[in-house]
Amino acid sequence: MHSRPSNLTIISRDAAIYSAVLANKQLPGLNIITATESVENVDLNKIEILLTEPGIAAEILEQCHNLRWLQSTWAGNTPLLAMAKKDYVLTGAKGIFGAAMREYVFAYLLYFERNIETFKRKALPSQEGQSPNYWTQPSIGTLKSKRLGILGAGSIASDLVSAARLFEMEIVGINRSGKSETNYDALYTIDNLCEFASRLDYLVCILPDTKETRHIVDARFLEHLPKDCVLINAGRGNSIDDSALINALNKQQLKAAVLDVFKQEPLPNAHPYWHMENVYITQHTAAISSPYAVCEVFAENYTRWRNDQALKHSIDFTRGY
Amino acid sequence: MHSRPSNLTIISRDAAIYSAVLANKQLPGLNIITATESVENVDLNKIEILLTEPGIAAEILEQCHNLRWLQSTWAGNTPLLAMAKKDYVLTGAKGIFGAAMREYVFAYLLYFERNIETFKRKALPSQEGQSPNYWTQPSIGTLKSKRLGILGAGSIASDLVSAARLFEMEIVGINRSGKSETNYDALYTIDNLCEFASRLDYLVCILPDTKETRHIVDARFLEHLPKDCVLINAGRGNSIDDSALINALNKQQLKAAVLDVFKQEPLPNAHPYWHMENVYITQHTAAISSPYAVCEVFAENYTRWRNDQALKHSIDFTRGY
Repeated sequence: MHSRPSNLTIISRDAAIYSAVLANKQLPGLNIITATESVENVDLNKIEILLTEPGIAAEILEQCHNLRWLQSTWAGNTPLLAMAKKDYVLTGAKGIFGAAMREYVFAYLLYFERNIETFKRKALPSQEGQSPNYWTQPSIGTLKSKRLGILGAGSIASDLVSAARLFEMEIVGINRSGKSETNYDALYTIDNLCEFASRLDYLVCILPDTKETRHIVDARFLEHLPKDCVLINAGRGNSIDDSALINALNKQQLKAAVLDVFKQEPLPNAHPYWHMENVYITQHTAAISSPYAVCEVFAENYTRWRNDQALKHSIDFTRGY
Repeated sequence: MHSRPSNLTIISRDAAIYSAVLANKQLPGLNIITATESVENVDLNKIEILLTEPGIAAEILEQCHNLRWLQSTWAGNTPLLAMAKKDYVLTGAKGIFGAAMREYVFAYLLYFERNIETFKRKALPSQEGQSPNYWTQPSIGTLKSKRLGILGAGSIASDLVSAARLFEMEIVGINRSGKSETNYDALYTIDNLCEFASRLDYLVCILPDTKETRHIVDARFLEHLPKDCVLINAGRGNSIDDSALINALNKQQLKAAVLDVFKQEPLPNAHPYWHMENVYITQHTAAISSPYAVCEVFAENYTRWRNDQALKHSIDFTRGY
């Protein structure tokens, strides 16, 4: 149990929200220092606990000689993993994205099944000389018995599985061990990637950015997807070989791609993805971390910190997540 | 227990499917006669059990002097209720629409929360002289803590409630008794209609077509809806005062209307609904009865019929559902 106060520095556009929410929690011995855009007035050398996003942290990390714990506001923290400095505990904002990710993924699954785009277009094209028949019924599908494949069958995936069960889908997954406490119809390792791909109606990729996941969705993998399959990538842009995906979409090897994340963000205006009819871009919004949710994660960890317990959601610098 | 064979006449575009599915079930003592478009070759006077849709049934009903049981392929059977002939058992195709209705309703709930329409538009309008900023992030909401109101808290509604619970919504309902076995946060009767309306984020109307439900959604009701509310009507067109709804939508008293059913179907091309940006029309497709599902209902009832038990989903001619 710590007796002296702990100094938390919050650097964020939302610093005032974080500060107010945490103050309201009346955490024992917590002193809060906040900064928004600029860190000029912050004595970096005195930072003990830091709460910020990975991009900001990366810029100042080497000057934070007394940093002991960094609570990131993001789940993925690639910029920090590449740095030499590793003498601190890095915790991610995890366990708070499942609900948002579930709404994102099922919004698009149901969007395709219910053919909302075609209904929205209203009047279907008329034959020459005929008036348009507004009432023509577009085709409709159902999620029932459709096969959902999850690349990255970890903790966020379990929130997808509960919804997929409700809609009576078949659910298969891939993770490192081929094992999970979540109830999958089948779980594979990366060695069975093509078998996994071959019968999917929907592929949801929520992999972290590691060496092993780079270009896991490549030309060979895409060839195994059924042509009605929709790919959703809400993990990291690195998982996808973009040239291979563009090629596969143009050849209609799959039906559509819903892309939330990219190797370069913002995705440049000139990128082909912006101009493809069967690509849906969602600007890295699939699972945004709300300050309120991040504060929950921080508060729980802070209590553990004060009691010298191991922190939750700590990131292994070697493993990369 | 009947000992002599029972004659089932199926009149439907899908008669061949019905016939094959039922034959496959090997129901004892069942003779099947089928007709598709025309009933010219059917001896109407010999029909004992009839499986067809209400529109077709209404045309021939008065000539079916020996009809004992009509299994409708629809849930709603208004054309038959208005007829003088009532000396037969009418059963609806019920208990099979919940899953489809759930996908329909949640497709649109998530469509609005995740702002799919704005994302799909891709490039947002640029200021004069500036290039468009493709990466601008549209706003996103969540179903969590949103309030779903169900007008018609009956058996189909229970399938909506299970999904609403998963997405952590608040759920309120209206039905005749103000009571339900399903877990609502609050349940009202029609006497508290405006209180029910006043805090809704989504209003789903799945009422049957009865005298009491006619124009239940009228100008007064619509005035009580919050201006961000989305109305979904997947019950019957009769529930809505269309002029009042058009007026309310034009005045932005509510955000949007998703309309599956109309007083006149097909909805005429000239109807204002077709030309309103905040109206989504789905051509009576929300919960289509698949022949396979209807056969399940029929088969269960047929077994009860052969054993002289009361049939399920029988319709009360007086009550109207």
